Amino acid sequence: MTTETTPAAMMRWNGWGDPALAKDLPLAVRALLPTVLGRVHRAEPAVALEDVRLSPSALAAEDRAALTAIVGQSHVNTDDEARIRHSGGRSTIDLVRRRAADQNAPDAVVSPAGHDEVLAAVQLAAERSIAVVPFGGGTSVVGALDPERGSHRAVIALDLRRLSGLLHLDEVSGEARFLAGTTGPESERLLAERGFELGHYPQSFLYATLGGFASARSSGQNSAGNGRFDAMVIALRVATPTGEVALGGAPGTAAGPDLMRMFLGAEGILGVITELTLRVHRLPETRIHQGWTFPDFATGVEALRRVAQLGTGPTVIRLSDEAETGIGLAQHGKIGRALSKGCSAVTVFEGEHEVAASRQALTEHVLTAAGGRTTGSAPAEEWAKGRFGAPYLRDALLDHGVFCETLETATIWSNIARLKSAVTETLRTGFADHDAKSLVMCHISHVYPTGAALYFTIIGNLRGDVLDQWDAIKSRVNDTILANAGTISHHHGVGRDHAPWLAQEIGAGGIRILRAVKDALDPTGIMNPGALLAAPQAG
Amino acid sequence: MTTETTPAAMMRWNGWGDPALAKDLPLAVRALLPTVLGRVHRAEPAVALEDVRLSPSALAAEDRAALTAIVGQSHVNTDDEARIRHSGGRSTIDLVRRRAADQNAPDAVVSPAGHDEVLAAVQLAAERSIAVVPFGGGTSVVGALDPERGSHRAVIALDLRRLSGLLHLDEVSGEARFLAGTTGPESERLLAERGFELGHYPQSFLYATLGGFASARSSGQNSAGNGRFDAMVIALRVATPTGEVALGGAPGTAAGPDLMRMFLGAEGILGVITELTLRVHRLPETRIHQGWTFPDFATGVEALRRVAQLGTGPTVIRLSDEAETGIGLAQHGKIGRALSKGCSAVTVFEGEHEVAASRQALTEHVLTAAGGRTTGSAPAEEWAKGRFGAPYLRDALLDHGVFCETLETATIWSNIARLKSAVTETLRTGFADHDAKSLVMCHISHVYPTGAALYFTIIGNLRGDVLDQWDAIKSRVNDTILANAGTISHHHGVGRDHAPWLAQEIGAGGIRILRAVKDALDPTGIMNPGALLAAPQAG
Repeated sequence: MTTETTPAAMMRWNGWGDPALAKDLPLAVRALLPTVLGRVHRAEPAVALEDVRLSPSALAAEDRAALTAIVGQSHVNTDDEARIRHSGGRSTIDLVRRRAADQNAPDAVVSPAGHDEVLAAVQLAAERSIAVVPFGGGTSVVGALDPERGSHRAVIALDLRRLSGLLHLDEVSGEARFLAGTTGPESERLLAERGFELGHYPQSFLYATLGGFASARSSGQNSAGNGRFDAMVIALRVATPTGEVALGGAPGTAAGPDLMRMFLGAEGILGVITELTLRVHRLPETRIHQGWTFPDFATGVEALRRVAQLGTGPTVIRLSDEAETGIGLAQHGKIGRALSKGCSAVTVFEGEHEVAASRQALTEHVLTAAGGRTTGSAPAEEWAKGRFGAPYLRDALLDHGVFCETLETATIWSNIARLKSAVTETLRTGFADHDAKSLVMCHISHVYPTGAALYFTIIGNLRGDVLDQWDAIKSRVNDTILANAGTISHHHGVGRDHAPWLAQEIGAGGIRILRAVKDALDPTGIMNPGALLAAPQAG
Repeated sequence: MTTETTPAAMMRWNGWGDPALAKDLPLAVRALLPTVLGRVHRAEPAVALEDVRLSPSALAAEDRAALTAIVGQSHVNTDDEARIRHSGGRSTIDLVRRRAADQNAPDAVVSPAGHDEVLAAVQLAAERSIAVVPFGGGTSVVGALDPERGSHRAVIALDLRRLSGLLHLDEVSGEARFLAGTTGPESERLLAERGFELGHYPQSFLYATLGGFASARSSGQNSAGNGRFDAMVIALRVATPTGEVALGGAPGTAAGPDLMRMFLGAEGILGVITELTLRVHRLPETRIHQGWTFPDFATGVEALRRVAQLGTGPTVIRLSDEAETGIGLAQHGKIGRALSKGCSAVTVFEGEHEVAASRQALTEHVLTAAGGRTTGSAPAEEWAKGRFGAPYLRDALLDHGVFCETLETATIWSNIARLKSAVTETLRTGFADHDAKSLVMCHISHVYPTGAALYFTIIGNLRGDVLDQWDAIKSRVNDTILANAGTISHHHGVGRDHAPWLAQEIGAGGIRILRAVKDALDPTGIMNPGALLAAPQAG
């Protein structure tokens, strides 16, 4: 039995999140921009939804009829608005493209209701040479949702949000089985009713789906305590063109390689995740917030490293560099106003009262000994309030003609300083080479015993063909990341944007393995062609 | 630069461990046996090494010459003793087979010195249709090392113990790169010189190699604190018949699926792991031992579940059932003497003083609230002293004509009682059907938030064709495990003994993935044929 579920909201078609929450740039930020970037020219007004021009749907009438037979008339949609709303993700590139009149879109949006309909749809698509882009919350920022048809006749977006609900909760084992299209908030609502929490809060939380988290190897803001999404997945059910695959179950098995892992990070190129069993925990009894300041980033990094390696157990631990601290980016309500020195950090502790208190005390001891000074609970609470709000700021910046994007990587502790410096320098030079000023900010928000993730936010006053310019800059950054022992992505994923660098990172051997599994499960190559692996194009 | 390394010791050819430590059965156990099993008939004396009869080596002269060209004359060995010493692992079945005069063995033992020699050897073997069984410490208990040639002309054991040493230690990141043939004790010795520890202590620790731990998805006695071996592996270098594969590196990457995982648990069917980068930590400042007793197993299980789910952080936590507690199996020095009631448990806490003390206090609070009573440090220290000794007891029991074997599985917390009862009943019935009495003991030694492993030790007075009888019993147990939502192995692995049940556990979809990767990396199927996947046989 599926617990009753509420339909997932859709985001603003050409920007982030709830249209009602879109705001103009805060005054403080507007005042700050000229100091940081010099002159900024307000952008051309974006195209209105009704003025977007698409190519006609390439879906043949008989394809449509066959899909309709599986999912029903009202769940095969070829109208322009539905197609536009499924025409990619939410990278800055995606948003800039949506400001133009001529756009690409899938040939149809198909919305199956459960595993069997998904399986029938992908098998039909394989028979009829129709590419399938699995579509959850639409929050990809690496081009994983581009409507690429490869060598196929057409491409459909498979909208999975009708697969929503909690199928089973084992309160003793702390396991919950969900339909894969359940969104972040909906899964937490269903669990909270029973006193449980999943505790996965990436910035995409409000819109993204559980299947999307798994497919993209998402990492949430509580990763220090709850682990990456990878670590929460116990079992998967997947619909592939060659049939169902069901893997996982028992904890800590040694029954051959963990084949379930092939689907975590596969971004839909092997099949569609339809159900997931996830590790959940009782709602924490308490939550302790504590802010910190460090004299500089290097001191803060060393403090975070000690916490991660000693295992003192914060749920959240994050550190902003001097630039990010300086404009108050981590203090969402105060951005541009609270100009601070040093580097600010946030810690949050959760669990039973004694456990959370003990974790807080141990962590405070370590951070203090490493040169940190606590700033009390308010800054950490402030961060928590604004934790999902940053993407709205990007839309407002784009409206003002300021290019804004984020990118991320991870590396081992001994290499953090070198990688951060190399990426920062490549970004600055890249913008300068396009006669643009830039501000590069960085934070650490995911720590591991052996290393951490670096998350960069960049603003710059690019003008003219922003897509080409950013493409050139990003390409150099990706080269820099791999040349400096970083990974091409810590949690944004690969999509199409990072695919050429994935091949470099995992080498010919890695590609051989990935290709072999792809060929075995999706021999005609209809599943999300071009994501992760280059796809053959129509001749 | 490789740090200086000491050569790995070899085990007794037909039993466990150091021949000098082999002992007769303790008097207390001998006194106990008639009560438990009734009449036991002392076994026939085992065959002497010099009386073992092997088929002549099937390695052709030109194969030998070609292998010699790679590894050198003295590292291609076809004498009987070397072949016998590489003729399988250390399951009870292996030991019983070694008591007979006619035995199987690989056609040669080849001992390469590094990655390049391993790669050249497996590529040569692929060209010449020679099966390759990668051989580390020889401690497999699931038939992963049987000299099976499949459809090939011959089979060689590739002894990897010359690949020994620490290649690099990053003290800041807590990462160590090792050659894969380094044994447990040697890796800890090399790390301890620098103030670090890996902290992986399975019962095979004294002989097994790091590559073996990775290949078999080993789990050590400190798994509650340090994680499974899977969790320690950061990067791998693998020699496959189709070339080198190098995967892993950055912590917490989302660069596509974690392909490195394909080699963890692959048991040598895809290639040979030659180097590993492992997560290591500073030697713990302190170690706190604390023993516990619970009125019954169900109460103890519930207590362990709370500890695992609250995350109070023991390094070791284990619970013996009433039968195991009754004969004192977990108190190695006192086995058969310390007849106790209830269920005994052991906890160990490690780390910096404050961290370890805090973990101990939180855990004590939870265990006490759940109905446990502490028995002080002595029982836990006693357990720690004898932690690698149990396999010697098996040899002594076999000498006395008592069949003794272990098997293990894992399941979710809500299913522990059902699975334990089903396996116990199947074992008892299985022995009874062969007119044998049996004693089935069980403990939990690996806990996870969602479940735990069940480890069974069985003794029985089987007589006659013990191999056939145990094969029939074990087969029924494996069926029972899968019918009751257990996994076919928590840490022993699959080998050849569990291969038919692996196919059931991971289904046609899982086998399709595994086979696809195998075919891509080892197209002629020379790598450990018959392990995990059934191998074609010579026509």
